[in-house]
Amino acid sequence: MLAVTILGNNSALPAFDRHPTAQVVTLDEFLFLVDCGEGTQMQMAKYKIRRSKIQHIFISHLHGDHYFGLIGLITSMGLLGREQDLHLFAPAALHDIIQLQLKVADTHLPYPLHFHALEEKSLLVENDRFRVTCFPTSHRIPCWGFRFEQVKAPRRLLPEKAREHGIPAIFYDRLKWGENYQSKDGTLIQNDWVTEAAPRGKSYAYSADTCYDERLVPHINGVDLLYHEATYLKDLADRAANRFHCTTHQAATIALMGNVGRLLIGHFSSKYEKLDLFEQEAKEVFGNSQLAIEGVSYRV
Amino acid sequence: MLAVTILGNNSALPAFDRHPTAQVVTLDEFLFLVDCGEGTQMQMAKYKIRRSKIQHIFISHLHGDHYFGLIGLITSMGLLGREQDLHLFAPAALHDIIQLQLKVADTHLPYPLHFHALEEKSLLVENDRFRVTCFPTSHRIPCWGFRFEQVKAPRRLLPEKAREHGIPAIFYDRLKWGENYQSKDGTLIQNDWVTEAAPRGKSYAYSADTCYDERLVPHINGVDLLYHEATYLKDLADRAANRFHCTTHQAATIALMGNVGRLLIGHFSSKYEKLDLFEQEAKEVFGNSQLAIEGVSYRV
Repeated sequence: MLAVTILGNNSALPAFDRHPTAQVVTLDEFLFLVDCGEGTQMQMAKYKIRRSKIQHIFISHLHGDHYFGLIGLITSMGLLGREQDLHLFAPAALHDIIQLQLKVADTHLPYPLHFHALEEKSLLVENDRFRVTCFPTSHRIPCWGFRFEQVKAPRRLLPEKAREHGIPAIFYDRLKWGENYQSKDGTLIQNDWVTEAAPRGKSYAYSADTCYDERLVPHINGVDLLYHEATYLKDLADRAANRFHCTTHQAATIALMGNVGRLLIGHFSSKYEKLDLFEQEAKEVFGNSQLAIEGVSYRV
Repeated sequence: MLAVTILGNNSALPAFDRHPTAQVVTLDEFLFLVDCGEGTQMQMAKYKIRRSKIQHIFISHLHGDHYFGLIGLITSMGLLGREQDLHLFAPAALHDIIQLQLKVADTHLPYPLHFHALEEKSLLVENDRFRVTCFPTSHRIPCWGFRFEQVKAPRRLLPEKAREHGIPAIFYDRLKWGENYQSKDGTLIQNDWVTEAAPRGKSYAYSADTCYDERLVPHINGVDLLYHEATYLKDLADRAANRFHCTTHQAATIALMGNVGRLLIGHFSSKYEKLDLFEQEAKEVFGNSQLAIEGVSYRV
């Protein structure tokens, strides 16, 4: 299962009860927090996101609307007695800010906070369940997007077929990982006679703040769901470019070029109270487009 | 006119839709922000507080529930094109935190932000309309309370009486400030024949986070309205002391000893969902006690 829940869909200035950027990605039993604007911990309470289940936080860049809520969240996790590890992936300078804020408060977190600088490598986490990578976007300051992929699950064993071919149970695990079996009499049992392919792993890309930049396309290529910012409607392409942001049409063009399954747009400018034109314009270019609405979970 | 509007009345962990500490003090046409927990700018929008009218911000101490919303607020003020001066009174270390956060975002505020360290002096602002002073409280880290006083207004001129006594209009201003008038024939016109006393200036004290400490009494003595923290009910006096906080009875005792007009209690622990016992217990010691409720303005 892969889904993304929107906690904040607005750009820098909170407005019309829309909040700065934050999202929770749910991948099976794992929760990832992506960006953490001011008020994220309150939004998590409102939408019943369990803070304790989050082990990985990803911060795209150091504009405040993407991280001012982080120090409050990690402090609250401490006040709630958290003991499990927390991994924070963010631009290196955030480490200094957090350490300074903990120091002046004389606060010692009761859990290990592991800081990983995004500048160091693009493969952030990889295990047998998921893989998270980052990629640079084009913004006024260094900024990264993130790609979340379910790792291709092992093949599904067909136990009756395996028994038919006389394969011992001890070999079943290796069958799941695609091996063929050579029986004692020399017969080769092809793996796909006794297993079937697992469903394909799902993928989600969060492209953070960016101006229109086709160099993003290979990084988001083929994902099932893409979140791309669309700060402005299409008539404000100049303003978007000046501020290193995108319009609806630009976001949808990237989705189209990247051959993604579905597009979510967000990071709406606080100059817009109503959002319906955003969806309409994005759909003009890429039909499977939707607005990122706070409190809504989009399942891949 | 002197009033205080509560934007957040909870202690460190946001809970039950209560927010961390922030208050707006209104003194005639001036607005002062006192502490600025996470989400304060959203609370200001909710309760229609005009950010642009704030020229002075006072931060009591550097526990996050009293300042994590500040950087978002001052950044938003910049995004809204503020040009007028902003004076920030806070513990010295906050200056470094703010400068670091502005630097990593490559943000240049379009207005002058004047930082004043609370460590330097206790008279923070004084002019012909108001005076703000600070005083130390007893908390786990250095912490200050604030006292706001309307400056005694000039006496009110009684123009008919002044004319009766033949006082020239050019002398009226000096009459307002209490001078007598010596007429050309040597007659002394007593000031109080031609003026009457202005109403007494009102006063408000915010005692910030503190354990029970009678050394606060002279600092809050005689104010019309005192805000004193009451994190716990009276049965948790030990826990309160351990955490450098107060109970209802302790807050009310300080109010009683300080001979204040009215007591507001707040900074409620997130362990309590209902608050009615707080008011009841405070009233057992000091009758004129009230809960600080978010969104409510308490007029002095």
